[in-house]
Amino acid sequence: MAGSIEQRKSEHIQITLNEKVTGDAITTGFESYTFIHNALPEIDFAEISTETEFLGHACRTPFLISSMTGGTALAETINRNLAEAAEERGWALALGSTRALLDSDGHPPSFLMRKYAPSVPIIANIGAVQFNYGYGTEECRRIVELTEADMLVLHLNSIQEVIQDGGDTNFRALLGKIEMLCAGLGVPVGVKEVGWGIDGETARQLTDAGIAFVDVAGAGGTSWSQVEKFRSEDPVRRAAAEAFSEWGIPTADSVRMVRPEIGGRPLVASGGMRTGLDAAKALALGADFVGFGRSILKEATQSTEDVLESMAVREMELRMAMFGIGASNLRELMDTPRLVRKDF
Amino acid sequence: MAGSIEQRKSEHIQITLNEKVTGDAITTGFESYTFIHNALPEIDFAEISTETEFLGHACRTPFLISSMTGGTALAETINRNLAEAAEERGWALALGSTRALLDSDGHPPSFLMRKYAPSVPIIANIGAVQFNYGYGTEECRRIVELTEADMLVLHLNSIQEVIQDGGDTNFRALLGKIEMLCAGLGVPVGVKEVGWGIDGETARQLTDAGIAFVDVAGAGGTSWSQVEKFRSEDPVRRAAAEAFSEWGIPTADSVRMVRPEIGGRPLVASGGMRTGLDAAKALALGADFVGFGRSILKEATQSTEDVLESMAVREMELRMAMFGIGASNLRELMDTPRLVRKDF
Amino acid sequence: MAGSIEQRKSEHIQITLNEKVTGDAITTGFESYTFIHNALPEIDFAEISTETEFLGHACRTPFLISSMTGGTALAETINRNLAEAAEERGWALALGSTRALLDSDGHPPSFLMRKYAPSVPIIANIGAVQFNYGYGTEECRRIVELTEADMLVLHLNSIQEVIQDGGDTNFRALLGKIEMLCAGLGVPVGVKEVGWGIDGETARQLTDAGIAFVDVAGAGGTSWSQVEKFRSEDPVRRAAAEAFSEWGIPTADSVRMVRPEIGGRPLVASGGMRTGLDAAKALALGADFVGFGRSILKEATQSTEDVLESMAVREMELRMAMFGIGASNLRELMDTPRLVRKDF
Amino acid sequence: MAGSIEQRKSEHIQITLNEKVTGDAITTGFESYTFIHNALPEIDFAEISTETEFLGHACRTPFLISSMTGGTALAETINRNLAEAAEERGWALALGSTRALLDSDGHPPSFLMRKYAPSVPIIANIGAVQFNYGYGTEECRRIVELTEADMLVLHLNSIQEVIQDGGDTNFRALLGKIEMLCAGLGVPVGVKEVGWGIDGETARQLTDAGIAFVDVAGAGGTSWSQVEKFRSEDPVRRAAAEAFSEWGIPTADSVRMVRPEIGGRPLVASGGMRTGLDAAKALALGADFVGFGRSILKEATQSTEDVLESMAVREMELRMAMFGIGASNLRELMDTPRLVRKDF
Ligand SMILES: Cc1cc2nc3c(=O)[nH]c(=O)nc-3n(C[C@H](O)[C@H](O)[C@H](O)COP(=O)(O)O)c2cc1C
Ligand SMILES: Cc1cc2nc3c(=O)[nH]c(=O)nc-3n(C[C@H](O)[C@H](O)[C@H](O)COP(=O)(O)O)c2cc1C
Ligand SMILES: Cc1cc2nc3c(=O)[nH]c(=O)nc-3n(C[C@H](O)[C@H](O)[C@H](O)COP(=O)(O)O)c2cc1C
Ligand SMILES: Cc1cc2nc3c(=O)[nH]c(=O)nc-3n(C[C@H](O)[C@H](O)[C@H](O)COP(=O)(O)O)c2cc1C
Repeated sequence: MAGSIEQRKSEHIQITLNEKVTGDAITTGFESYTFIHNALPEIDFAEISTETEFLGHACRTPFLISSMTGGTALAETINRNLAEAAEERGWALALGSTRALLDSDGHPPSFLMRKYAPSVPIIANIGAVQFNYGYGTEECRRIVELTEADMLVLHLNSIQEVIQDGGDTNFRALLGKIEMLCAGLGVPVGVKEVGWGIDGETARQLTDAGIAFVDVAGAGGTSWSQVEKFRSEDPVRRAAAEAFSEWGIPTADSVRMVRPEIGGRPLVASGGMRTGLDAAKALALGADFVGFGRSILKEATQSTEDVLESMAVREMELRMAMFGIGASNLRELMDTPRLVRKDF
Repeated sequence: MAGSIEQRKSEHIQITLNEKVTGDAITTGFESYTFIHNALPEIDFAEISTETEFLGHACRTPFLISSMTGGTALAETINRNLAEAAEERGWALALGSTRALLDSDGHPPSFLMRKYAPSVPIIANIGAVQFNYGYGTEECRRIVELTEADMLVLHLNSIQEVIQDGGDTNFRALLGKIEMLCAGLGVPVGVKEVGWGIDGETARQLTDAGIAFVDVAGAGGTSWSQVEKFRSEDPVRRAAAEAFSEWGIPTADSVRMVRPEIGGRPLVASGGMRTGLDAAKALALGADFVGFGRSILKEATQSTEDVLESMAVREMELRMAMFGIGASNLRELMDTPRLVRKDF
Repeated sequence: MAGSIEQRKSEHIQITLNEKVTGDAITTGFESYTFIHNALPEIDFAEISTETEFLGHACRTPFLISSMTGGTALAETINRNLAEAAEERGWALALGSTRALLDSDGHPPSFLMRKYAPSVPIIANIGAVQFNYGYGTEECRRIVELTEADMLVLHLNSIQEVIQDGGDTNFRALLGKIEMLCAGLGVPVGVKEVGWGIDGETARQLTDAGIAFVDVAGAGGTSWSQVEKFRSEDPVRRAAAEAFSEWGIPTADSVRMVRPEIGGRPLVASGGMRTGLDAAKALALGADFVGFGRSILKEATQSTEDVLESMAVREMELRMAMFGIGASNLRELMDTPRLVRKDF
Repeated sequence: MAGSIEQRKSEHIQITLNEKVTGDAITTGFESYTFIHNALPEIDFAEISTETEFLGHACRTPFLISSMTGGTALAETINRNLAEAAEERGWALALGSTRALLDSDGHPPSFLMRKYAPSVPIIANIGAVQFNYGYGTEECRRIVELTEADMLVLHLNSIQEVIQDGGDTNFRALLGKIEMLCAGLGVPVGVKEVGWGIDGETARQLTDAGIAFVDVAGAGGTSWSQVEKFRSEDPVRRAAAEAFSEWGIPTADSVRMVRPEIGGRPLVASGGMRTGLDAAKALALGADFVGFGRSILKEATQSTEDVLESMAVREMELRMAMFGIGASNLRELMDTPRLVRKDF
């Protein structure tokens, strides 16, 4: 069982690195927005601050590495490179689905990243649907303890489970179970999608259930029907996956839908984020944090240095966008009236 | 005469399989709509039901095979493959124009599909314009009897008749004759186009005349001016056909126009339907049933198994779309507020 | 002098036949309109009538051949082919600029088309700007007499004159002179552009001045800055011409602008008209007649038969469009509510 | 120090001439506007006047050469070609950043253009940010004196300074220093961007500070993040520059934003201006003058004659646009109601 999860995880990495896994006829939506440049920013670039906090954890940037991997040898390298870099630049670190942790006999070292990232928030991850397949608060508590995570994020991935051979597709009555988990776990519980986004009503229901944050993981980046298409052995599901290449709520739309529904809880914009300029747009649209997934994966397979450079570029882009509109800190960026639709 | 119909039917199959017969600068319009994904569907994929009924006939899916062919040897193979598959998966089956049935001496076996599809609705087909060329209620009754059909659909194909060498182009005063047929035939009579769609006002008039259902057969798929262009020997009509490659009401628009005008009568969305995701959009826009024509023809020339797989893909896509928005049955899909225009 | 006009005319024909003379980033605008198909037209295709009249002349079609040429040997062939075909199918015939008629010693036979087209309206043509260069009512009267024309159309071609080496560019105070001509000539006087269109205000001023009809000759077809670009020997004007490739009022827009400003006077839609479907749209938008220029030129260099076939295609397309919306005559086409913008 | 400025200037010329330095997914916005052609202009092309004045200086055209270069040998050739041509055709001439003038020991002849352009307005140039790096009113006065300029324009180039290795990025509190300079310099002081545009609010603040004119230097032409990308040795800034290829306020939008905020002060439209038709649109949108940068640079490296021809083309295009709408002078062009958005 653990073996099959391991193989699946390896294939996911290979496919997302090497195949065309983005959707068709769908984008994040950020390309429709533009900042109105401020030619006279009246600030010093050197003094721009991107400091913020995430559920009580002080952070040097509003950036996090999206849940990706774990459970294999390559995953260990990837996660270590990500963890060391996250620690050095002050990014939050989300781990890939930590279900393998419990299913395996030993404790896969690929999930034990606290030693490389002692000071930044670490977020453990598990599929919400597992609550219909034998998992509960107890299992989540063990995952959090083993990973020394500060919080847990549940992923919602209905369409992926359908395409995946042998996927877990009973998504009945999960809301009540999420509510119980939030009440009982002891650390904050967030919810994320995996690339199809979250709408406003769902975000509100999850908030009422006690969720501490929402990561929209919207459409326009990695499309998990595309990824699973490459893995499936069933021609029917392979063909059907193709039609879903356009599915999902574009990340920018998802951010706008969710923002008014979750009160002051942190909103993470992710799904297809590529640059710090996209990130700046997301923050100005209502996000508090921005997550990067596949766009930082290749560097993670290479070295900590490669990850660090890629992180530095995104930070530079964010600071340049802030400079360009004269925002010296994130509050000013989030409150800016300078983000407009391109057809204004 | 029957010989010439036979040859025409063969050519139609060859041309639609091998030539570029879709229009230019026209689409079905479904690409402008998108579903707002529901990340927390709260349903079990395995329990999704696509059951429905069509004029009193219980159906396992809201899908039908559009009228295509009959009257030739190849047509017999095609229709048998379609009929066997329709029976196995519970699709409704519309036959191609059954006029050849009466014009020929024997009874072309290509139309006698009831033995292969004993339980699903079978729909016989004839051109409405034939009522101006010697056909009437009596002929229609014989067609229904011979084919053992549950109902009859009349096709309206004005532009095709003009391009076709020797086409029947007197479309005068058909409404009254349709009214008489509806009153006298004894089985339900529907109306369809062949790829240029039906507008709201026409649908209302037809409803007032007693029509039992409307199949819009809109634009965006097979363009019959394009098809006849390849057959015509008249350079004038060939050139004129080209200009009509953009003609017609896109299927999505036709569905929206017709829906409010026909009361509770079944509305079939067809014309350019390719996937179950398109189908789901059509159902959410107001259709009750969805018809597939040319997009299933190639499989039909091959084998029952190929048709079956193609059907399974469309059903899977429909169920995935329902899962993606949390609809566990067709009523919930039809009532969903989650279908929006992409520029929402 | 006449020699140089002759050469210019030859070059115009060669260039428009062989070079890329359409504008960039500009279209006629008809592609933005679509007819709502009427699946049940309730008319007989064979009984569709395209009869109309133009300033008292009964016409079998609402089509005219736009002013093109004259004054050279090739022009004589072209005009004869056009004239014979116009006579046979009942199209109106506009001659190219007849200025050469007066400037030359003999009477160029290329303008004397009445013998080939005894019964259809013939329209003589001269540039309005010539009234600032020595021409007046007397010269126009001679032109009409020599050509045995039924009316005269003045062309307005300001931008062309600028690009043309040695063009006549004093367009001062022409309105008053046009008014005098209209009062004194004795046959109806119309006005046309040459591919940049006429706006509503200008059309109203011309109507007040006594003009009998307006031919918009809008943008989207032949661009005369592009044509003259190939002829000019001045690098400055050649380069400047290029920038005007986007200039002009799209024909569809021009029709809509002019229609309400000229009372019941005939409105000719021309400029980039290619098919009878375009023509049908123009008529439904407010035009009374439709003119074809360059799109019929190649056939005119070949034979009367080629022109005839090309005419038959356009007539067939017009009748098909009428059939497709259930209009049995031009009045019903012009009054149809079935023409809509594509983004309706 | 002066040496490094020299090298930078050379590289700027080489890169802008030879590399792809325009942005992606951004245009000037002028392509969205079109003039409604006036077929009956009632004016004489020969009498069209483009005369105007700029801050009291009579000018034969509303055109200026944007600040480009100085300080190198090639710059001397370029500037001399530009200056001689500007004098001959009556264009205003803006010099490249004249900071090198003060930093170097000698007085670089490339800035001393008054002898070649005795009668047209000459505009000296320096980066506003230099007021935070040791420059003040005194230095500006020397620059104006040495260059014999009629006025000074300050450039605002925040994003460029960030990408540039060792750029000056403290843009704090510049407004007050600009205000002091305006009060104390004795010649008019303008402000310009370098390709990202100026918004309305910033323009109003600068006006309140005493600025005499605003040159928007908007986006859609040369992108200075693209230019500096080719020069930077830092992979982080090179990558970040790429993301800013879409940054900036399109020139047409910037003109519309700034116009209502600066009272009667002259507004220069620049940034991506290529033709006199673009210029005409800018003037009709609210500009008083139009500046050309990179689109005239290649000619400037060649000869005075090449510059002259390029100037003649733009003037011809402007006059043709005026002819096309019947405007005989710039006031009529600026007041025309004939400029509309293409989707009117
Ligand atoms: C290789 C790979 C593995 C992933 N594994 C997980 C996972 O285990 N749990 C999860 O919630 N999301 C997982 N994701 C989804 C990402 O967290 C993210 O939501 C999605 O890829 C969209 O973001 P992107 O476009 O930036 O890649 C994975 C993504 C990738 C590329
Ligand atoms: C080979 C072929 C034969 C057809 N024959 C008929 C016919 O006999 N009667 C009819 O009503 N429609 C006929 N049609 C039209 C289809 O029923 C359908 O309305 C049209 O092709 C548009 O749907 P599509 O885009 O899915 O092909 C035929 C279509 C095809 C491809
Ligand atoms: C070869 C050629 C010669 C033309 N000569 C004249 C002319 O003498 N007088 C005139 O009013 N228009 C002349 N035109 C312009 C046409 O009448 C017409 O207005 C213009 O070409 C736009 O229509 P089109 O796009 O259908 O060609 C000429 C056009 C062509 C192609
Ligand atoms: C080679 C080159 C050098 C430039 N140097 C300066 C400069 O020194 N000072 C300045 O204000 N702008 C400078 N610019 C910017 C231009 O003045 C102009 O604002 C910008 O290039 C956008 O206009 P364009 O698209 O017409 O090139 C330079 C531009 C070029 C192409």
